[in-house]
Amino acid sequence: MTKGRLEAFSDGVIAILITIMVLELKVPHSGDLQALRALVPVFLTYVLSYVFLGIYWNNHHHLLHAAERVNGKILWANLHLLFWLSLVPFVTGWMGENHFDPLPTAVYGIVLLFAGVAYLILQKAIVAHQGPTSKIAAALGNDVKGPLSALLYALAIPLAFVREWISDGIYVLIALMWLVPDKRIESRIEG
Amino acid sequence: MTKGRLEAFSDGVIAILITIMVLELKVPHSGDLQALRALVPVFLTYVLSYVFLGIYWNNHHHLLHAAERVNGKILWANLHLLFWLSLVPFVTGWMGENHFDPLPTAVYGIVLLFAGVAYLILQKAIVAHQGPTSKIAAALGNDVKGPLSALLYALAIPLAFVREWISDGIYVLIALMWLVPDKRIESRIEG
Amino acid sequence: MTKGRLEAFSDGVIAILITIMVLELKVPHSGDLQALRALVPVFLTYVLSYVFLGIYWNNHHHLLHAAERVNGKILWANLHLLFWLSLVPFVTGWMGENHFDPLPTAVYGIVLLFAGVAYLILQKAIVAHQGPTSKIAAALGNDVKGPLSALLYALAIPLAFVREWISDGIYVLIALMWLVPDKRIESRIEG
Amino acid sequence: MTKGRLEAFSDGVIAILITIMVLELKVPHSGDLQALRALVPVFLTYVLSYVFLGIYWNNHHHLLHAAERVNGKILWANLHLLFWLSLVPFVTGWMGENHFDPLPTAVYGIVLLFAGVAYLILQKAIVAHQGPTSKIAAALGNDVKGPLSALLYALAIPLAFVREWISDGIYVLIALMWLVPDKRIESRIEG
Repeated sequence: MTKGRLEAFSDGVIAILITIMVLELKVPHSGDLQALRALVPVFLTYVLSYVFLGIYWNNHHHLLHAAERVNGKILWANLHLLFWLSLVPFVTGWMGENHFDPLPTAVYGIVLLFAGVAYLILQKAIVAHQGPTSKIAAALGNDVKGPLSALLYALAIPLAFVREWISDGIYVLIALMWLVPDKRIESRIEG
Repeated sequence: MTKGRLEAFSDGVIAILITIMVLELKVPHSGDLQALRALVPVFLTYVLSYVFLGIYWNNHHHLLHAAERVNGKILWANLHLLFWLSLVPFVTGWMGENHFDPLPTAVYGIVLLFAGVAYLILQKAIVAHQGPTSKIAAALGNDVKGPLSALLYALAIPLAFVREWISDGIYVLIALMWLVPDKRIESRIEG
Repeated sequence: MTKGRLEAFSDGVIAILITIMVLELKVPHSGDLQALRALVPVFLTYVLSYVFLGIYWNNHHHLLHAAERVNGKILWANLHLLFWLSLVPFVTGWMGENHFDPLPTAVYGIVLLFAGVAYLILQKAIVAHQGPTSKIAAALGNDVKGPLSALLYALAIPLAFVREWISDGIYVLIALMWLVPDKRIESRIEG
Repeated sequence: MTKGRLEAFSDGVIAILITIMVLELKVPHSGDLQALRALVPVFLTYVLSYVFLGIYWNNHHHLLHAAERVNGKILWANLHLLFWLSLVPFVTGWMGENHFDPLPTAVYGIVLLFAGVAYLILQKAIVAHQGPTSKIAAALGNDVKGPLSALLYALAIPLAFVREWISDGIYVLIALMWLVPDKRIESRIEG
C-alpha cells in the first residue's frame, strides 16, 4: 500500500485545522485599539497552538518520510492522531476566550497529552511494520522527547488548578523542546 | 484517465468535513465544568461521525487503490458519494444539539444509508470499468458488509421513533463492523 | 512548468467551497419537522450549487488532463476562475436564505456567468499554450456548450425580475446540459 | 528530503485561507439592493486580499519549483510565512467591517509587511540550501521587488493615520507590481 494518500490526507487535515483556528479570532465590530487588545489572549493561544500543529506536521513529515510501507493499522493509528489534533482548535478557542482559566488550561493539556500518546502509537505501528532492522527503528531507538513530553503534560494538567501560569510555562517549554526538528531521523536518512 | 486527482479531491473533501464538524463544538463563553458537560452529546456524535468518515476514507483508499483506471461515470459516482458525506456535519450537529431527539436520529440514519448506497454504486462502477476478470471484481465478489449495513440503517431509521437509543446502538454496531479494514481487497492485492 | 500544483490547488479550493456551502445549512435548535422544513430552500440551492461545482471540477479535470504544460498566464486564468467560484457559497446562501427572491437569483446568475466566462478564458489560454495543432485544440474546435451557457445566463439574469422561477429553470437546464462529461476531449485523448 | 509535501501543505493552507475569507461576506437576511450595498467594502477588501494570496501562491510556486531540495530550516521558514498569511482573513474582515478605519488599515499593512519579510527569509533559506552557484541564486541575484514592497508597506502603515486612502493606494500599487509573475526565475529555469 502506498503512503501517498496518507500523507496527503494528513496534510489536508492539519492545514485545515491551522486555518480554522484563525476563525476563533472573531473580527471586532469596531476599529479601535481596545477591540484589538481584547483579542490578545486569543491571539497568544493561537500562536502556541500554531507552533504545536507545525511541530506535529514537521515530525509527521519526517516520520512518514522514513516509512516505506503502510498497512491498515498505520492508517487507523494516523486517524487516531488526527482525531486528537482536530480538538486543538476547540481547546485553543476555549482557553483564549476564558483568559487562561484553570479548567480550559487543563483540558488543553489533556488534548495535547492524548495527541502525544497517539503520535507514539503511530510511531510504534510504523516501526513494527518496517521491521526491527529498518533505518527508522534504529533512528528512533532512544526516543526521549516523546515520553518526556507526555510526562510534562501529565504534570501540567493538575498544576493548572494550582497556578495556571505554571501549566502555560510547561506548554511553552514543550513547544521549544520540539521546535528543533528530529535530527535523529533526518541524519540517519541522509547519512 | 488517471485516478490521482480523484483521490486528491476526495481526500480534500473528507479532510475538510472532519474538521468542519469540530466547528459544531461551539467554544463556551465560560470556563467551568458545566459548560463542558453541556457539550457531551455534541462531542459523542462528533466521535461517532469521525469514526464513520474515517471508515469511508479508509475503504475509499482501499477501493481506489485496487482500481487501475477511472472514467466519467466513476467521477460522478464519487461526487455522488461525497455529496451524502457532505451532509454528515449537518446531521451530526443536529443530532448533538438536540440530545438525540427521534427525528434528528432518524435523519442521521437516512444520510448514512444514502452514503452507503452511494458507496455501493461507486464500487459497482469501478468493478464494471476494470472488467469482470479483474482482481477487484474477484475481491469484492461476495460483499456482505455493504448490503448488511444498508439493511441495518433501514431498520434503525423507523426504530428511532420507538426507542431512540436502539438506533444509536445500531449505528455504533455498524461502525464497529466496519472498523476492521477490508481484508478481502488488501489480501488479494498484496497476495 | 508542471501542472501538478495547479491541479492540487484547484482541487483544494473546489473541495473547500463545496464543504463550506454546507455551513449555510445552519443546525436548527429544535429537533422537529418544522425546523427541517424551513431548511428546504437552502438545501435545494445547495444541491444546485453542488452540481455546478461538481461540473466545474469534472471539466477542469478533463481540461487540465489534456494540457501538457502550463505558464504564468494559465496560472492567473485559473486563479481568476477560482475567484468567481469562491463567490458561489455566498450567492447560494443568499438565494436560499431569501427563498429565491429576484435580486439574489439574478446575482446567482451573474456569478455563474462570470465563472463561465473565466472558464472560457482559461480554456483559451491553455489551447494557446499547447499550440493550434495540439490534441486539445482539435478537441475543443467546436465548443458549443460554453458560449451557449453564457447566453442562457445572460437571459436568466434579467428574467429573474420578471418571473423568478424562469431563471431557476434555466439554471437547472444549464446544469443538466453539462452533467454529461465533455466527451469531445475524453474520446480524443483516449482514441 | 522531498519538497512534495511542503508544496502540498502550502497549497492546502493558501486554498483554505482564500475560501475562508469568503465567510466574512456574511449572507444578508434580506434580498434587496441595500443589503448588497452594505457588503461593498467587505467585498473590495476580499478582492484585494484574494489578489495578494494569489500572488503569494504564484511566487511560492515559482520559488519551490526552482528549489531542488528542502531541509528543516526551509520547512520552518515556510511555516513562518504561512503563519502571517493565516492572519490575512482576519485583517481583511476587520478592515472591511470597519469601512477602512485607520487602525485596521495599518494592521493590514503590518501583517502584509511581516508576510513579505517571511517570504524573503524563505527565499534566503532556499538559496542557501541550493548553494551560491545554483540557478535560483543567479535568478534571484538582484531581487528588487521584495525589499521595495517591504519599504512601501513600512510607508503605508503610519500613513493610514494621516489619510487612510493613501495606504489603500499603496497596497493596490504593490499588488499591481507583483501581478507580473517573477520572469527572472521563469526565464532562467526554462532557458
